[in-house]
Amino acid sequence: MDSFYIKDASKYVGKEVTVKGWLYNKRSSGKVNFLLIRDGTGIIQSVAVRSEIPDEEFKLFDKITQESSIIVSGVIGEDSRAPGGYELSLKHIEIVQISEPYPISPKEHGVSFLMNKRHLWLRSKKQHAILRIRAEVINAVRDFFNNEGFILVDTPILTPCACEGTTTLFETEYFGEKAYLTQTGQLYNEATCMAFGKVYCFGPTFRAEKSKTRRHITEFWQVEPEIAYAELKDIMDYAEKVIVYIVERVLEKRKDDLITIERNIKPLENIKSPFPKITYSEAVKLINEKGSYFEWGDDFGAPQETLISDSFDKPIHISHFPTKVKPFYMKRAPEDEKLALGVDVLAPEGYGEIVGGGQREENLEILEKRLKEDNLPRKAFEWYLDLRRYGSVPHAGFGLGIERVTTWICGIHHIRESIAFPRLLDSIYP
Amino acid sequence: MDSFYIKDASKYVGKEVTVKGWLYNKRSSGKVNFLLIRDGTGIIQSVAVRSEIPDEEFKLFDKITQESSIIVSGVIGEDSRAPGGYELSLKHIEIVQISEPYPISPKEHGVSFLMNKRHLWLRSKKQHAILRIRAEVINAVRDFFNNEGFILVDTPILTPCACEGTTTLFETEYFGEKAYLTQTGQLYNEATCMAFGKVYCFGPTFRAEKSKTRRHITEFWQVEPEIAYAELKDIMDYAEKVIVYIVERVLEKRKDDLITIERNIKPLENIKSPFPKITYSEAVKLINEKGSYFEWGDDFGAPQETLISDSFDKPIHISHFPTKVKPFYMKRAPEDEKLALGVDVLAPEGYGEIVGGGQREENLEILEKRLKEDNLPRKAFEWYLDLRRYGSVPHAGFGLGIERVTTWICGIHHIRESIAFPRLLDSIYP
Repeated sequence: MDSFYIKDASKYVGKEVTVKGWLYNKRSSGKVNFLLIRDGTGIIQSVAVRSEIPDEEFKLFDKITQESSIIVSGVIGEDSRAPGGYELSLKHIEIVQISEPYPISPKEHGVSFLMNKRHLWLRSKKQHAILRIRAEVINAVRDFFNNEGFILVDTPILTPCACEGTTTLFETEYFGEKAYLTQTGQLYNEATCMAFGKVYCFGPTFRAEKSKTRRHITEFWQVEPEIAYAELKDIMDYAEKVIVYIVERVLEKRKDDLITIERNIKPLENIKSPFPKITYSEAVKLINEKGSYFEWGDDFGAPQETLISDSFDKPIHISHFPTKVKPFYMKRAPEDEKLALGVDVLAPEGYGEIVGGGQREENLEILEKRLKEDNLPRKAFEWYLDLRRYGSVPHAGFGLGIERVTTWICGIHHIRESIAFPRLLDSIYP
Repeated sequence: MDSFYIKDASKYVGKEVTVKGWLYNKRSSGKVNFLLIRDGTGIIQSVAVRSEIPDEEFKLFDKITQESSIIVSGVIGEDSRAPGGYELSLKHIEIVQISEPYPISPKEHGVSFLMNKRHLWLRSKKQHAILRIRAEVINAVRDFFNNEGFILVDTPILTPCACEGTTTLFETEYFGEKAYLTQTGQLYNEATCMAFGKVYCFGPTFRAEKSKTRRHITEFWQVEPEIAYAELKDIMDYAEKVIVYIVERVLEKRKDDLITIERNIKPLENIKSPFPKITYSEAVKLINEKGSYFEWGDDFGAPQETLISDSFDKPIHISHFPTKVKPFYMKRAPEDEKLALGVDVLAPEGYGEIVGGGQREENLEILEKRLKEDNLPRKAFEWYLDLRRYGSVPHAGFGLGIERVTTWICGIHHIRESIAFPRLLDSIYP
């Protein structure tokens, strides 16, 4: 189990190691063969000089095709000209399997071809780097909330209640009853935060939305913190802190990957507190000043979000939305019933909403009235109403979308590359 | 944001703090009132002496019902007689909400009543402690795999393929096609480990099994590592190491919670490497020696698992199962085609299987033949077969069930208490 991995090359200079990997690329100059070998943790250039390797093994080079699995041994040396800075002087080579002609060549392929070969495309440098950044985003999120004293409490995926209408829900049969795939853990978080004070859930959520845009996938991961005895301003603080923390962490641990995908790092280095804070009404004014007509009371779409975020070089908080664009459980502003105590955070560089949240209505009578007004099934919400009967307190929370954040940090065009196996309107394969 | 939480009481001795929480219990001796207050991080005894608190606030005590939300301030003192070792000398008390009569009293309730009030039951000491232990199990699992150089790569929940028959699958409609909720991320892990070397996925998985036992829930969380260039023995090592790591971590960080739930800690302190390793055939012999008739070739059920695990005081590896009880993708033993290179790990104390895994078949022709024999839809597996066409390597992995492990570590009777909102055959509420 004490295997050598390429990422650790610097610790093995002058030593003989065995690399178990795949051929990424090769070239030859007659007496010297160069193999670029990847092992999942990195790529190393391996050099075979005819005189230093058994003849029958040297001859194997011609046979080794792209992505063939091979085990090689040799001595690690520093070489500033080699990609990654280290080089392997080959002594032995063993073929595990000669790959069939690999469908993904260095030439350009269309995205639908590549998505259909997603199980292989993941081996390519850029996709590999994006998913390592994604993993770091997730680790950062968990470390942040754990360090801040939040407890992870998983909320259910299968839920009995179509809380906000069934049109964007995936439905399944649950032993004779209808059940739905969750869109958010929020309602359950409201129960667990009354038990644990500060909680978060982290898991996949689902939206059967017929949107075919570069910002939508049907299965997406969210972290959702919820805090008892908290108000809107508290969760705005936490949202800002976690975003700063994530970006710092990726810059610290995954700079190489950001360079691999040619991300301009300057805008990320600028992500520091404080973020600008504007209200919905101020945002509407801004949009109109920029020459785009937008009426107070409507919900922002991608074009409006881009107009707003283009005016700032940091993520921006927008709060105090019209109540009618926000769900029934959102608390209204004490000074103006028409405004909901919700907040969205938009990423800079036109990446749209990465956080949505707000303060929840804690009053039983108001919630009962709203359920009625919105024609929601009272019975399914009895447990939720219990939270307002037994020790109700002000509380607030938000959801942060992992794919949205990863897409922004990576600076990539389409959200589909921010998850290993994206589920899109027209694709559930592989 | 700089709120005081009860868990930090030791750092505030002699200082005045404000506790925002709920009434857990109260008692009075006329001039002195005792309030047990919980805030989600702990419980603290608060003492109100009539002479030290404004009269109108002292009078509030009679009104405060169980689970009423209250904000109190006072000075923290050490007191070895107080539960937790610290006490709050009250100066002020403010009522946020007087709770309606709380349905869960200290008297005994039936489990179906409590499960129906799960959103409130979570506030009880024992449930609270179990879920904190669960959160620690999950943190331990992630830290272990991250420290060992694994990359987290999330696998999809919605899958197009009913890999092992549809009888235990939840089905949904995916924009006109059929889709299923995943039972395992394994097949996708096999793709990602060829891209990243060592990977793990961590998420909810689903089994629509009509089993109503104390070991079954329909929605359960699994961590599933998968390693390229690995064999059965390698993943047996990792399974053992992660189990030891989890138990050590819970003992280190959550001993208080284990004490709260009255877990006997001795058997947990014994969970050290090496674990015993036996083959399926040896296990069959053991079962028969113990006087229970069991035929070679059948799969173990709960009674057999208990018989086996009762013979050992540590988790035990069982390997080399009959091929016919294991799925098509499991590699067969080179020395005996009738045996599959799979391993189960059984928890001690009769808690059954906590790990299942094995080495995967890496040969294209053999897999093609098995798909045919098992009547599986070849087309849905094309991408999976690609992994054997392009640089196939020996690889292996396993799944570890979070609820099974939590149930065992907590020493509780039924798996339903190891997750916040369990999904059971007869219950999907709340």
